[in-house]
Amino acid sequence: MQATKILLSDAEIPTRWYNIQADLKTPMPPPLHPGTKEPVGPEALAPLFPMALIEQEVSQERWIEIPDEVRSLYALWRPSPLYRARRLEKVLDTTARIYYKWEGVSPTGSHKPNTAVAQAYYNKQEGIKRLTTETGAGQWGTALSFACQFFGLECQVYMVRVSFEQKPYRKAVMELYGGKVLPSPSPQTAAGRKILAADLDSPGSLGIAISEAVEDAASREDTHYALGSVLNHVLLHQSIIGLEAEAQLQKAGEALPDVVVGCFGGGSNFAGFAFPFLRHRLIGDKRDIRVVACEPASCPSLTKGEYRYDFGDAVGMTPLLPMHTLGHGFVPAKIHAGGLRYHGAAPLVSHVLHAREIEAVAYHQLECFDSGVLFARSEGIVPAPEATHVIKGAIDEALRCRESGEEKVIAFNLCGHGHFDMGAYQAYFAGQLQQHEFTDQMLEENMKQLAGMPTL
Amino acid sequence: MQATKILLSDAEIPTRWYNIQADLKTPMPPPLHPGTKEPVGPEALAPLFPMALIEQEVSQERWIEIPDEVRSLYALWRPSPLYRARRLEKVLDTTARIYYKWEGVSPTGSHKPNTAVAQAYYNKQEGIKRLTTETGAGQWGTALSFACQFFGLECQVYMVRVSFEQKPYRKAVMELYGGKVLPSPSPQTAAGRKILAADLDSPGSLGIAISEAVEDAASREDTHYALGSVLNHVLLHQSIIGLEAEAQLQKAGEALPDVVVGCFGGGSNFAGFAFPFLRHRLIGDKRDIRVVACEPASCPSLTKGEYRYDFGDAVGMTPLLPMHTLGHGFVPAKIHAGGLRYHGAAPLVSHVLHAREIEAVAYHQLECFDSGVLFARSEGIVPAPEATHVIKGAIDEALRCRESGEEKVIAFNLCGHGHFDMGAYQAYFAGQLQQHEFTDQMLEENMKQLAGMPTL
Repeated sequence: MQATKILLSDAEIPTRWYNIQADLKTPMPPPLHPGTKEPVGPEALAPLFPMALIEQEVSQERWIEIPDEVRSLYALWRPSPLYRARRLEKVLDTTARIYYKWEGVSPTGSHKPNTAVAQAYYNKQEGIKRLTTETGAGQWGTALSFACQFFGLECQVYMVRVSFEQKPYRKAVMELYGGKVLPSPSPQTAAGRKILAADLDSPGSLGIAISEAVEDAASREDTHYALGSVLNHVLLHQSIIGLEAEAQLQKAGEALPDVVVGCFGGGSNFAGFAFPFLRHRLIGDKRDIRVVACEPASCPSLTKGEYRYDFGDAVGMTPLLPMHTLGHGFVPAKIHAGGLRYHGAAPLVSHVLHAREIEAVAYHQLECFDSGVLFARSEGIVPAPEATHVIKGAIDEALRCRESGEEKVIAFNLCGHGHFDMGAYQAYFAGQLQQHEFTDQMLEENMKQLAGMPTL
Repeated sequence: MQATKILLSDAEIPTRWYNIQADLKTPMPPPLHPGTKEPVGPEALAPLFPMALIEQEVSQERWIEIPDEVRSLYALWRPSPLYRARRLEKVLDTTARIYYKWEGVSPTGSHKPNTAVAQAYYNKQEGIKRLTTETGAGQWGTALSFACQFFGLECQVYMVRVSFEQKPYRKAVMELYGGKVLPSPSPQTAAGRKILAADLDSPGSLGIAISEAVEDAASREDTHYALGSVLNHVLLHQSIIGLEAEAQLQKAGEALPDVVVGCFGGGSNFAGFAFPFLRHRLIGDKRDIRVVACEPASCPSLTKGEYRYDFGDAVGMTPLLPMHTLGHGFVPAKIHAGGLRYHGAAPLVSHVLHAREIEAVAYHQLECFDSGVLFARSEGIVPAPEATHVIKGAIDEALRCRESGEEKVIAFNLCGHGHFDMGAYQAYFAGQLQQHEFTDQMLEENMKQLAGMPTL
C-alpha cells in the first residue's frame, strides 16, 4: 500500500520558529503612529502586548526558540499530518504530485491555535491575567479562549453582534473553553456606548469590536490585547506549519516543492505555510520555487490593492502599516469565507509581493466551492470555505501540469475543516452562492480616504 | 518533552479485523425469523446484504483479512492517534495512567466510517449499485454517503423528518458526499405512504426510517441495505480501533490496560475498542482486565434491560436478535447523545455481558456533560455528547485509583468530536439539560409487548 500520510512524532515538533525578516533583501518599513505619523517604538505597543511579542515583531533573528511549554501544548495536535493527495491527482489526471498539510486536526479545527497558544504563553510570562480580542465568525475567538484556558488567563471576546446572534454555537465553543463572550457593540466600553447611543440596534462590525477590545486592554493594567493575523509575530508563530511540512516532504523523499499555494486573508495562514519554503528562494537554494497567494475576487487586496500605509483596523485607531490595501473603509462582500474578508494584508506578505518574490491570484467563491466539493469527494475532508481558495489554486496548477506534462510538486496548507460551515455548503447546493464583483470604481472610492496619508 | 500522542504509520494499519466469536465460551444464539421464529439462514438475509457480510456475521474465524482497498481508504485518517491524557490526569490528581484513542480525526468526525467503508466495498464487489440506510441525527448517514462516494455507489438516506428539518446542515454534509437524503416518512415507499396517509405531518422515527430503507433495498435488485451498528459484522469492522490501540499501548511501553471503558449505544463503538482487549481476558492472557460499558441512565438497556429475543427495529420487521433490551417499543428520552438512544444492544455485547465478562454502568446526561467540559478544558478536544459518557466512566475509574493509590492503566475510545453538537453544549451552559429518569414501571410496561416471544 502506498503511503497517504506523512507523520512526524511529538519529538519532531520543530524547536524554532522561522523569522523571514532575517532573509529579506530590503528591511521592512516601520509601522507609523496614527497621530504623529512617526515610526512607532516598542513603548507605544507595551500597553497592548508583552515585550517578548514586541521584540518578535521587529526581530532580525532567523530562528526563534519555541518555549517548551508552547511545544508541549502544540503536542495536543501537532505535528499535523501531511497528505499526498493521490485520489485528487487521479481525478485530475495530472502529472503533478500534490501534497497538503492538514491543520483541521487542531482541537478548534483550524490553524489559529498555533499563535493563540504562543501569545497566551508570553502574556502569562509577563504576569498578565486577562486577554481581550475581537472575533467575527468566531474561529479566532475560539482559538484564543482555548489557549487562555491552559494558562489560567481570562479571555474576553468581543464578538460582532450580528454573528453573536446568528452563530450561537460559536459562542458555546468559546464558553466551553472558558472564554467570556460579549456582543459588540457593548455597553462595557466607551467605544461601544458611543455606537449604542447612536443606534441601539447596531449590528456591529469587526472595526467596532477591535476598538472595544483595544480600549478594554489599554484601560486595565492586568489586561493585554491579542490579534489573530497580520502582525509579524503572528506570522512567525504560524511558521511551524511550513517547517513541519518541509520535514515531512523530505521524509516522503521529495525535494523542495516547485509550487507552494496558500489561501490569503490577513496573511498568517498563508505565510505560516509558505515562508519557510520562500526562504529557499530568498537565500538562493531554489530560486524557481513559485509561491502563490489565493484571495477572494471580492476582496482582492493583493491583486488590486495599492501598496501603501493604511490603518490595520476599519476605524483608524491602530498604527499605520505598510501593506497592500483596498482602503481601511472598504467593507468586503459577505462571502462565506469570513476569514478572508480583510481590507489589508500582512506587511510581511505585502513586502515580498512588492519585491515580486511571490505571486497572487483572485478567485470567485463559486469556483472555490466547486473545487472544495471536488476535494471532499476525492480526499474525503470537508474544507472550510477559506480553504477552498487554496484548493482552487492547487487544482489550477495541477491542471497546468496535465497540459504541459510536467511532474511538479505542488504543496498547500488546508487550514481548517468546514464542519462549522455547513450553512455555506447548503447555500452552494441550493444554488444561492453569489458572485461578488470588485470594481475599479470601488477601489477609487475607497482610496480617497487615504489622501494625504504617508506613502511608501 | 514527554510524548502526548502515540502514532502509527499508514503501513501499520492492521491487516486483519478481530472476530470475538472465535473466543466465546458458548456460541451465539442464532437470530430468529420474525414470522416463523425459526433460526434465520443466510438466504433470508441475501436480499439485504452481500454474501461476504452475511458470512462475516456468522464466521467463527478469529482473524478476518481487511481488503487492500479498504485499508487504503482507511489511510485517509487511520491509524487514528492514541493520546496519553496527561493534563486530565493532573487535573484529577490520579495515580492512574489514562489513554484515549481519538476517532474524531475521521473526515466525518466519528468512528462510523470504519464500517461504512467496509460495507460499501463488499457491496460494490457483489455488483450492487446502490445502498439505502436510515439516519437519525445524521452521523451514520454521513459516514455511508462518504463511503459510497469512493466506490461509485449511490447512497439513499432516509432521515427522520424532524431531524431533517431541524438539522439542515447534516443534510448538506451528506449531499456534499453525494448522498441523497429524503425526509422520512416519504412518499417513496409503501411504509412511508401508509404513515403519511394517516398523518401528513408525521415527524417520523428511526423505526419508520428503517422500514423505508429496508423496503427500498428489498424491492430493487441493484440495491442493498446497510446498518451502522448492532450486527456482528459491524462490530467486526470496528475492531480496527482496539487493534490499533493495543499496538499503540505497546509502543508506549505499557502492558495491557487494567480497565477498558466504552460508551454504549448500539454497541459498535464500544465493541470496536473493547473486544480486542476483552480477547485477552477470554483467552486467559489477563483474566483481570475489567471492561466497562457506559450507557445513558435514560436508556439503560445493559443495566436494566432483559436478556431475551427482541426485534432490532421499533416496528418489528427485522429478525429477532438475542439481546439486552428495554422492549422494541421503548422510545428513549430525547437526550443530546442521539447515538446512544437505542432500545436494544448488540447481541455480541449482550452475550459477553450475560457471561459476566464485561460490566455496565449508567450515567445521567448532566454528569456526562460535566465530565465532557472538564475534558475539553484539560485535553482541548470537544467531545461529542455520546463520548461524554465514556469520559465520565474513565474519570470515575481514575478517581477510584486516586483513593486507592493504584497505578492502573485506563483506556477508552473517544468516538467523535462535538463540533456538530454545539447546540447541546449551549443547552448545558444555559442550564437547560434535563434529567431523564428510567423507572421500573417503564420497563414493565415495555416488556408487555414481548409476551409470548421466544426467550433465551
